[in-house]
This record gives sequence, C-alpha cells and structure tokens, in this order.
Amino acid sequence: MAPVPPSSRDDYVEFRQITTRWMDNDIYGHMNNVVHYSLFDTAVNGWLIEKGLLDPGTSDSFGLVVETGCRYFAEMKFPDVINAGLRVAKLGTSSVRFEIGLFRNDETTASAEGFFVHVYVDRDSRRPSPIEGDRRGAFEKLMRG
Amino acid sequence: MAPVPPSSRDDYVEFRQITTRWMDNDIYGHMNNVVHYSLFDTAVNGWLIEKGLLDPGTSDSFGLVVETGCRYFAEMKFPDVINAGLRVAKLGTSSVRFEIGLFRNDETTASAEGFFVHVYVDRDSRRPSPIEGDRRGAFEKLMRG
Amino acid sequence: MAPVPPSSRDDYVEFRQITTRWMDNDIYGHMNNVVHYSLFDTAVNGWLIEKGLLDPGTSDSFGLVVETGCRYFAEMKFPDVINAGLRVAKLGTSSVRFEIGLFRNDETTASAEGFFVHVYVDRDSRRPSPIEGDRRGAFEKLMRG
Amino acid sequence: MAPVPPSSRDDYVEFRQITTRWMDNDIYGHMNNVVHYSLFDTAVNGWLIEKGLLDPGTSDSFGLVVETGCRYFAEMKFPDVINAGLRVAKLGTSSVRFEIGLFRNDETTASAEGFFVHVYVDRDSRRPSPIEGDRRGAFEKLMRG
Repeated sequence: MAPVPPSSRDDYVEFRQITTRWMDNDIYGHMNNVVHYSLFDTAVNGWLIEKGLLDPGTSDSFGLVVETGCRYFAEMKFPDVINAGLRVAKLGTSSVRFEIGLFRNDETTASAEGFFVHVYVDRDSRRPSPIEGDRRGAFEKLMRG
Repeated sequence: MAPVPPSSRDDYVEFRQITTRWMDNDIYGHMNNVVHYSLFDTAVNGWLIEKGLLDPGTSDSFGLVVETGCRYFAEMKFPDVINAGLRVAKLGTSSVRFEIGLFRNDETTASAEGFFVHVYVDRDSRRPSPIEGDRRGAFEKLMRG
Repeated sequence: MAPVPPSSRDDYVEFRQITTRWMDNDIYGHMNNVVHYSLFDTAVNGWLIEKGLLDPGTSDSFGLVVETGCRYFAEMKFPDVINAGLRVAKLGTSSVRFEIGLFRNDETTASAEGFFVHVYVDRDSRRPSPIEGDRRGAFEKLMRG
Repeated sequence: MAPVPPSSRDDYVEFRQITTRWMDNDIYGHMNNVVHYSLFDTAVNGWLIEKGLLDPGTSDSFGLVVETGCRYFAEMKFPDVINAGLRVAKLGTSSVRFEIGLFRNDETTASAEGFFVHVYVDRDSRRPSPIEGDRRGAFEKLMRG
C-alpha cells in the first residue's frame, strides 16, 4: 500500500495563522512532534470561538477529543509561521472529524497532517449531545465539495 | 466495526512513572489531549536513554517520528501519577512502532493508548539507518510473545 | 553586592518529586528556563491540593499569581528527577510568597531557586480575600522557624 | 514603597507579535503564569535570530539565562494576539538585561512585564564571552535614549 502523499493548500477550506515559539524546537533543532497537536487544538478551537460556536466557560455542550493522529512529512522550526488548514472529513450525529494541514511559511505542500475526532457532550452530564443548528451548519461549510 | 477496547497492564512489557503537572489540565479541568503525546515521547525516550540506546547529543543515529496517534478512553488530571506502559508492535529494517498505554494511578485499564512510529536516521545525512545490534535486541524484548 | 548563593535542602520545609519530560530540554540540551516555572506551579498547587486547601474547580477563593522570579545556578535536564523544596517566606493578610528550590536527583544544593507571590481572591468577584483558618495554619507551618 | 505601574507601548523599542494557543489557558480560563516566560523567550530569541545575531545550532557563543522575573497586571487569554515589546535595560561586558512587555491585542498598557538576564558564553567552554561587534551594536539600539 503506497503511503498517502501530503495535501496541498487547495485541499483545505479555512486557514489560521499560528506563530511558533522558541520552546517548540527540541534538542534536534526542529519542532517536536508533540507541538503539532497543540497547533491542531489551537486551529480548531480558535475557529470555533471566532465563529461563536464555543465559549469554553459557558457553552452547554463542547467537544471531547476521543482520537487524534498525525503524519509528519517535513521539518518545521522556530521562527517559522505556520498556516493551519482546516476541513471537516466526517460529520456524524454527535461526532465530527476535523483534519488539519500544517503549512510552513509560504509552502503549499503540508509539512504535517493530522486529525482530531470530537464527540460533543453535554457540559454537566458529559453524555453525547447532537450537533445541531449553527454548529452543524458551520461544520458542513468546512466539508470539501 | 466494534471499537477496540482499552488494554490492561498485562498487555505492556515495561512501565515508566511520570508525574503530572498543573499546566497539563486545561480549562475543562482534565489533562489536555496534547499532553498525552508528551508523555509518550517521555516514556519512549526515557527508556531508550536508560538502556544506553540513545544519547540525544551524540548518537550516530536516532529515531525521527513519522506518525503518531492516540485514542482517549477516560480522563486523567493533575495531580495524578501516570504509569506509561511500553511495547513494540512492529519492528522493520529501520522503523519501529512503539505502543504506549497510560494508566492513571493504580488503575489497571488504560485511560489512553497511543503509538509512535520512529524511523531511524543517520544524524548527519538524515537518511534511514538500519536498526541493529543492541538496539534491535532491546526492541525485540519489548515485543509481546 | 555579592550574589546570593544557592540554598541547600535544609533551607526548605516540604519536598515534592517531579519527573522531567523529553520536551523540557531545548536545543541546547538542557531544561529550558520556562520549564522551571511549570515545576514551581506544580509543586505549590500539588501541595495545596494534597493538603485539601485547593480544589481548582470549586474553591471559593484561590491564589492569583501577581509576581514570579527565578535564578538559575546549574543545568538540569531530562531524564533527571527534580525534588522541589517549598517554604513560605512572607505571609500577609491576603498574600503569600512561596519560595521553591529545585534539586536535581540526589544533589543537596539547589540548581535553581524561585518565588511565586499569590494573592488570594474570591472566585466570583476576583477581589482580594483574607487568608484564614486551615489555609493560614498550613502556610505558617511552611515558614522556617 | 508604591508598586511600579505597568509600562505603555512607548516604553518599548521593538515589537513582535505572538499568537496564543488553546493550551495557554489553564483551568481558570486565563493564560497560565508560566506561558508568559515562553513568550519572553520567543520574543527575545526571535529578534536575535531575525537580526542574524543567533543561529542556535552554530553560533560560537549564545546567551545562557541566569535570572528571569515577571509581574502580572491583567489577564490575557486565548485567542488573544500578544504584542511583545522589547528593550535592553542594562548592557554589561558579557551580560544583558532584556525587558519585555506583553500587550494584549490593541491595548496600550502592558498586561504583564518581565525581564530576562542573559550571560553570553562560549558554546564549548560555557565560560562568559564578551558581547562585541554587531551584537553589542544591536543591543545598544534596543536601549531607550
């Protein structure tokens, strides 16, 4: 089975810019593999907050992360600026799979790509809660046609 | 397809203890999904260093991370102590797949499980380098019989 | 003015053990200067939680950090185990100055020392709240006689 | 002794923009006190690299951090954009004191201010090394007249 090649910017719907930090680089002088997930989390939650779909302190329901993953194609490092592309790959009743591509500076091929499966839960009961209304509408717009 | 249930401690070969930190908890009061990867990295590299298989400043070859993933079953949070179980699931010519289970305090069922694919590369050329000798021997001992 | 020399373990009252992580090391191969503050935060809040003096999700009042500082004497690095010594240096009506010494493995001289000024505030109003009762008693026991 | 009030943007010479991350917020819903130091480190080292004064992998000498500190005036939180102001407050033979002000979004009064004392050392011997030439010239330009 041939490995899946990295996506290009055209494969993503929305982009968010994230600056790197000194501590992102590990002893090998490149962004440590853990940092990528912090960028994923930042891109997804930043988009949700900006769209008015999440207020972490008060929203009745929010997404709990049940699975994540990342494939690493090329090094990134401080002081690069990272452009995080977002798309929704699957949208279920109460779950959503976000995919994120990390593009280094002006590059058009992803240096890393990952995913993030959120299950929406009720804040108090932490039981699954259906994705409806504005939230579902916004997620649908993040799907590629 | 039924989801794979969490492993028990018996499914892992070596264990390393890692203390949690205040900053591991996010606004939801539990360990943020990114932190799990920092624990994986710490468990794998800590074991490699302790076994004399990695000196990050000088080793001729070292493992570059090409893919990682994690499934989250249950919350962990500061000030929990995490027991990270280690096993090798696949051993190729120059690549190795580590699997890591995170067990909270005295619990015997994993709260999260992940993997980490390392490709060994030459420090200077960053070209794949075969896993041989003591390193291969140690990895084989981490495989479950 | 001669610089203040590092403290020894005898200069601290309580100790907490914290394991280092792979990502604590930066490109220079030692613990990045930022990490020390994460260890301070972990030591102080871990002690507060263990003593029943803080439940971050529900306590009526909690300590807001208004000033911190650190002096660095010697390198620490992953996979060191850090013993964090705690003492209270000043106790005001609603503020407390914790001092923390970081001791590497079995060493008896601090590799770094810092402080942390907490002002206790009411959870809702975020206005200063007097340190009283069990909390004040516990802080007094952390003062050196 | 009256506390020193926060600086305004006019009190700083150079500015660098840093995006916040989801994980910067702790359980209290604001940027954890540790993160400020990561922003300081990022602002100072980013400026040094951009000016050609530091190549972390190869520079003959680099700055070791011997003391840091921070005063916290007001909350910042994800997804704020932080503007980090830089100035040099003291320049010795081989040491330099950077001061950094963190300004939230468009605010003109610092939400936090800190410092960072670097002693320049030789990469191999780790002995103090005089600050000379372009590096001294650049540091002098960061001093306020």
